Amino acid sequence: MPRHSPSLDRATQDRIAETALHLVDEGGPEALTFRALATRLEISLASLQRRCTDLAGLLDLCIDHLAARLPEIEPDTDWATATETRFTALYRLLAAHPGLLALRGTRPWLGPHLLARLVEPQLADSLAAGMTPEEAITAYRRMYLLTLGGAGFVDHRDPKSAQSATRTALAALDPEEFPALTGNLAAIVPAVTDHEVYYGALRQLIRAADPRATDPTAAATGSAGPDPRRES
Amino acid sequence: MPRHSPSLDRATQDRIAETALHLVDEGGPEALTFRALATRLEISLASLQRRCTDLAGLLDLCIDHLAARLPEIEPDTDWATATETRFTALYRLLAAHPGLLALRGTRPWLGPHLLARLVEPQLADSLAAGMTPEEAITAYRRMYLLTLGGAGFVDHRDPKSAQSATRTALAALDPEEFPALTGNLAAIVPAVTDHEVYYGALRQLIRAADPRATDPTAAATGSAGPDPRRES
Repeated sequence: MPRHSPSLDRATQDRIAETALHLVDEGGPEALTFRALATRLEISLASLQRRCTDLAGLLDLCIDHLAARLPEIEPDTDWATATETRFTALYRLLAAHPGLLALRGTRPWLGPHLLARLVEPQLADSLAAGMTPEEAITAYRRMYLLTLGGAGFVDHRDPKSAQSATRTALAALDPEEFPALTGNLAAIVPAVTDHEVYYGALRQLIRAADPRATDPTAAATGSAGPDPRRES
Repeated sequence: MPRHSPSLDRATQDRIAETALHLVDEGGPEALTFRALATRLEISLASLQRRCTDLAGLLDLCIDHLAARLPEIEPDTDWATATETRFTALYRLLAAHPGLLALRGTRPWLGPHLLARLVEPQLADSLAAGMTPEEAITAYRRMYLLTLGGAGFVDHRDPKSAQSATRTALAALDPEEFPALTGNLAAIVPAVTDHEVYYGALRQLIRAADPRATDPTAAATGSAGPDPRRES
């Protein structure tokens, strides 16, 4: 194939991923079809399908395109800070594209950038900090699923509308049957789209897993304490 | 309309919800269309649309049908136990229908059973235990988003296949570039579908939020029971 075909130039992996993300962001998960994407890219359907054979391949391309923007952490960063930096960066990338998470569903994401920027260094840091492999992967998965939940199930792109729907539904409830909900609307409504819900939960999971928080005082903030099985 | 029309009998809210859940469970989120659902229910499309005007209405019906099965907690149950009981029950209900969560996306769920069985009693218990309204709703939202993440982004219905995809992808990595991932497959692969990832994270969030765990020692071990880490 000629190297400078305009069609090929339009169909780089980055451009396919960017355009697919635009479609999802504009029209929701159902807007991402191969036909719509090929049209937007101004390439043929066959040409697009040569690059991503199926929806799973296309989604992998999109998430790994985002994962390429995850930060690289300085080697001497302490475990808790490195962990918080990685996951909050992932959260911010995904919260901008919740439709992508709806399409992902239960399919594992195993793209090269996600593995190289997030999973491998996080596990390596956790092992170096003294966790067993089981502890390291369990802590990773806990923070990962919290991050996907916080990014995928809240409409951070239209917080006013999410808050308004909640306020309307709760204000219509019977105050005798629902005293806690109807009596605290001013606290409840903003929490529906508050990023601190996620950030605080992440910090709680980090403190609970922190292998260096082994003394009782440090453990008081959430660590499960020293583990007799750990070899150090 | 006649009270004993077979068509109406087939189209109770419970039957619509059960049948919609079957469609999603069998064929994934994209299998839930009004046409497919009407056909399966053996009613007309118009008849179905009279009962749920749009997909949002249909999804509300499904989740609230599930939420009706959430447990009612005895009044004198301690805060941590009541909290863990409610959220683990929600997790089990949702983990059986991950496609429902993909369809939900960022749409708030505000059905009567979910509010009456989960949100209202959880907030009321938290306020009674001494939390401020802001603390109560924040703790609730943290556990709620973790629960949706744990149930919606893991294929618990086909764990072998999820583990196999992970094992294949990780085994193909370069051990020099990915030593933590390639060197610990035996620990990593089972964690991909381990329910303890969720249960332990929930207990960590419960301990971190527990208003009664005010002294360091109590907070370290928490009132949620023994150390969440389990021999595996």
